[in-house]
Amino acid sequence: MSKKLRIIPLGGLGEIGKNMTVLEYGRNQIIIDCGLMFPENDMYGIDLVLPNFDYVIENQDTLRGIVLTHGHMDHIGGLPYLLRHINTTIYGTPLTVGMAGRQLEEAKVLQNAKMQTVDDKASIQLGPFTVHLFPVAHSIPGSVGLVIDTPAGTVVHTGDYKLDETPAGGRTTDLKRLKKLTRNGVLALLADSTNADRPGRTPTEQVVADTLDELFTQADGRIIIATFSSVLARLQAIMDLAVKHGRKVALTGRSLQQNVSLARELGYMKVADKALVDVKTRIPDDKLIILSTGSQGEPRSALNRMAKGEHRQIDIHQGDTIIISGGTIPGNEEDVGRMLNRLFERGANVIYGRLATVHVSGHGSRDEMRLMLETVKPRFFIPVHGESRHQHLHARLAAEIGLASNQTFILQNGAIWASDGQKSWLEEAIPAEDVYVDGRLVGAIGETVMRDRQRLSQDGFIVVYVPVNGRSKLVGEPQIISRGFVHMQESSDLIDLARKELKRQLQRKGRKHDPKETVRRTLQNFFYQETQSRPVILPNIVRIS
Amino acid sequence: MSKKLRIIPLGGLGEIGKNMTVLEYGRNQIIIDCGLMFPENDMYGIDLVLPNFDYVIENQDTLRGIVLTHGHMDHIGGLPYLLRHINTTIYGTPLTVGMAGRQLEEAKVLQNAKMQTVDDKASIQLGPFTVHLFPVAHSIPGSVGLVIDTPAGTVVHTGDYKLDETPAGGRTTDLKRLKKLTRNGVLALLADSTNADRPGRTPTEQVVADTLDELFTQADGRIIIATFSSVLARLQAIMDLAVKHGRKVALTGRSLQQNVSLARELGYMKVADKALVDVKTRIPDDKLIILSTGSQGEPRSALNRMAKGEHRQIDIHQGDTIIISGGTIPGNEEDVGRMLNRLFERGANVIYGRLATVHVSGHGSRDEMRLMLETVKPRFFIPVHGESRHQHLHARLAAEIGLASNQTFILQNGAIWASDGQKSWLEEAIPAEDVYVDGRLVGAIGETVMRDRQRLSQDGFIVVYVPVNGRSKLVGEPQIISRGFVHMQESSDLIDLARKELKRQLQRKGRKHDPKETVRRTLQNFFYQETQSRPVILPNIVRIS
Repeated sequence: MSKKLRIIPLGGLGEIGKNMTVLEYGRNQIIIDCGLMFPENDMYGIDLVLPNFDYVIENQDTLRGIVLTHGHMDHIGGLPYLLRHINTTIYGTPLTVGMAGRQLEEAKVLQNAKMQTVDDKASIQLGPFTVHLFPVAHSIPGSVGLVIDTPAGTVVHTGDYKLDETPAGGRTTDLKRLKKLTRNGVLALLADSTNADRPGRTPTEQVVADTLDELFTQADGRIIIATFSSVLARLQAIMDLAVKHGRKVALTGRSLQQNVSLARELGYMKVADKALVDVKTRIPDDKLIILSTGSQGEPRSALNRMAKGEHRQIDIHQGDTIIISGGTIPGNEEDVGRMLNRLFERGANVIYGRLATVHVSGHGSRDEMRLMLETVKPRFFIPVHGESRHQHLHARLAAEIGLASNQTFILQNGAIWASDGQKSWLEEAIPAEDVYVDGRLVGAIGETVMRDRQRLSQDGFIVVYVPVNGRSKLVGEPQIISRGFVHMQESSDLIDLARKELKRQLQRKGRKHDPKETVRRTLQNFFYQETQSRPVILPNIVRIS
Repeated sequence: MSKKLRIIPLGGLGEIGKNMTVLEYGRNQIIIDCGLMFPENDMYGIDLVLPNFDYVIENQDTLRGIVLTHGHMDHIGGLPYLLRHINTTIYGTPLTVGMAGRQLEEAKVLQNAKMQTVDDKASIQLGPFTVHLFPVAHSIPGSVGLVIDTPAGTVVHTGDYKLDETPAGGRTTDLKRLKKLTRNGVLALLADSTNADRPGRTPTEQVVADTLDELFTQADGRIIIATFSSVLARLQAIMDLAVKHGRKVALTGRSLQQNVSLARELGYMKVADKALVDVKTRIPDDKLIILSTGSQGEPRSALNRMAKGEHRQIDIHQGDTIIISGGTIPGNEEDVGRMLNRLFERGANVIYGRLATVHVSGHGSRDEMRLMLETVKPRFFIPVHGESRHQHLHARLAAEIGLASNQTFILQNGAIWASDGQKSWLEEAIPAEDVYVDGRLVGAIGETVMRDRQRLSQDGFIVVYVPVNGRSKLVGEPQIISRGFVHMQESSDLIDLARKELKRQLQRKGRKHDPKETVRRTLQNFFYQETQSRPVILPNIVRIS
């Protein structure tokens, strides 16, 4: 490899996208973040989506380390899968490294990683790269952006950030440090595009705290709050409000309990032991706040079980105030809607986004993006994170403040942006197809299987047993079995007709037909005509000689 | 039946819900609206959802007619299915009856209906019911609400409405007529709950026209607008703006062309012939507006085909301004998001809801609902339309303005609200389960088939052929075929291992096992352990004697 800087995004689509970026200089590579993505509704049966690690695994001898910007799953969740294949050092602030370490431990690959905790203003030397961290405000404590000095010039990666001036926990984005670190000019800026379609500034987290304060004042029964288990700064605000309103806090949901315990251990959260109670403790409704997962209406989450009346400890009743303090991730609207309906039907007073500001985004909006661009004044700009519409809108924002169109690069996963410090160009992309995780199967589920699942989900399948003799002549009754097509008992007339048609066609044919093909075509035509459905048809010709 | 009034909702959930209400007095029945619902994402393979017509079909001899409030599919789309079973007269304003008639004609059941066009201030006598229409503002012309005098008292049904003071077309909700018709008091109000979680008033349609005017001024290339084919008043506004900006309008999409042609015929739209061009006409980009369907990202819609580069006539390019002038119906977010991404990737300037007010709701918000309640001052209140959370919020709004909790009834489909004109009570509900339409199959797809499809979509299926002799002893190689589980070629090791395990288990068993059960259990355990998946397993024991 020649001496030039290469930047390769391997993931970075979707608000809860699998973020991962490779920086390469000569035979030196570093990785920024390694996230996972939760599947979209039409990714049938898929549990998780990972970036494609092939390139990184092939070049692992050049890897100088992985730097994490913060502890959200879309930035750290891919690590357990990557660390099956490679050994390396992982750098990040204490909470980030703590959360990543827990992931690796659960996947039993922690021994492959050296976990290196650093301060949020640290500088790390990784081969030819000097990585300077700077604090950023985001919905999880310990978030950082990166200023990376390379022999070709300085690269800035914002991570996820907002320019909140009154964030929970009081930790603002350190623009002063960013300015100082970039005073010699910036070759390339990689910046968060998530909210590029939101005008103005994202409301401050303080608005949420104020709204909650007001709702706590109004509530005269139990309060149940559903939120992301990783918005630890908001959880701290809720704990403080609980004390103010004379209520104890109970935590339900494993990830919530784990995150709070880790954050308390590391000093990111300050909560007195006596402020917490077990959810099983008997305590008057008006003295209790229950913190729960399930703001996305996930079928098996604590809140959804409460909504369905299936939660072992908690029975929703009249007088409960339920606050959904989390935005709905696109694709989850129907699940969330159904859960809200059920909670209302149980008599609860349910407060969600449309009714009060109980959630704000952790990502900056257009005015914040503009300020970031103006602060960094990069020679080249690579919008990252968010979906491609957000990246295009971010690019246009850059154009508005004077970046020429040849200074901005919207990269697909696997695209290679290269620079010698002066010019920049795109090199031939590397394969970077998404990798699907289905149970224990990683990468075994490709497009063919997905298409079959899609078709099966629409029309089900039919298996046909056809007993024939050596001359492909029918020598008994064909048998038809189906699943997911029609109800077999209730539609026995239809199945009988199909069997008759099949016999007719098989008896009509001479010696030279392919009985498999005859069965398939006959039933496909018959069922399409009768039902306009196209079930998968599996003929099984049993030769009886 | 004794002489009392009964109100029975048979459909009414979902913003695009299947609305249908039965009013009954003695042996007299009328139906208000008969809609369909589009399936949710987890209704695998379902094309449409219908209200349950059983009760109406059983009692068809008592049916005095169907009254339609407006021509949207969630209010008229069920008619072609109901009219297969019954003969009746259908009443509505000309556009509504025109649209309903077209549905019936396409389904070849028009001969079963007498289509009766009435004025939007008409009064219709239907047995003991006198149905008075009053104009309401909604996103389709010719919308009405109903004041129904019954021997037990007056019932008001708002239909879909907003209290827009500057609606497209200038036709406001006629509160004066409503007041006059209800001056002797109202027994029950059935009112639209769709926007019960939106504070204030819904913005006026005029805002959309103003935004479009501005966008037309800015655009220097082609303009493509995607919208619902039924928001005819907005289509008129767009036609007028086109004339103002010196552009011709081309229509793509069958429903759009049909609706515009019907509306022009009936005088609901005023468009000069020369204002329209065929989409194939060669015309400079800056002189053209293309109106298209596809605002929901529907896979086969015109706009989505353009986004994928699969549209025969229209090729999206740099300079195109694309305006998505339709709200995203919950559940369609992912489809819409993907389509937007693709349009941006083709270089278009895409304007959607987050970027400008290019769509407003056709339903009133909380302040409008409050005004409706205060205008009608009903003795009893039945919130309808919208999902159950909206109905609960609407009920709370009624409580705020003084209705006691025993005056408000939130009804499930099939619930029976009854009144003698003084008191009111609930009677035993009738069965009103949703009816699924899948291709030509109406009602043949029940919960079992849906559960099978859901499972098949997650993990696929496996068919196993096991040749055994009369003593259930294996006498050959078992054969494993799968679809939608794993890729058979790529996972041949896994399948080989499964076959070996199966042989081992079958050979171990003595004479007395059920080979089917052995096969099922063995493979279920094996695959779950290896993959954590649970494919559907269909054992086929072939006896070779």
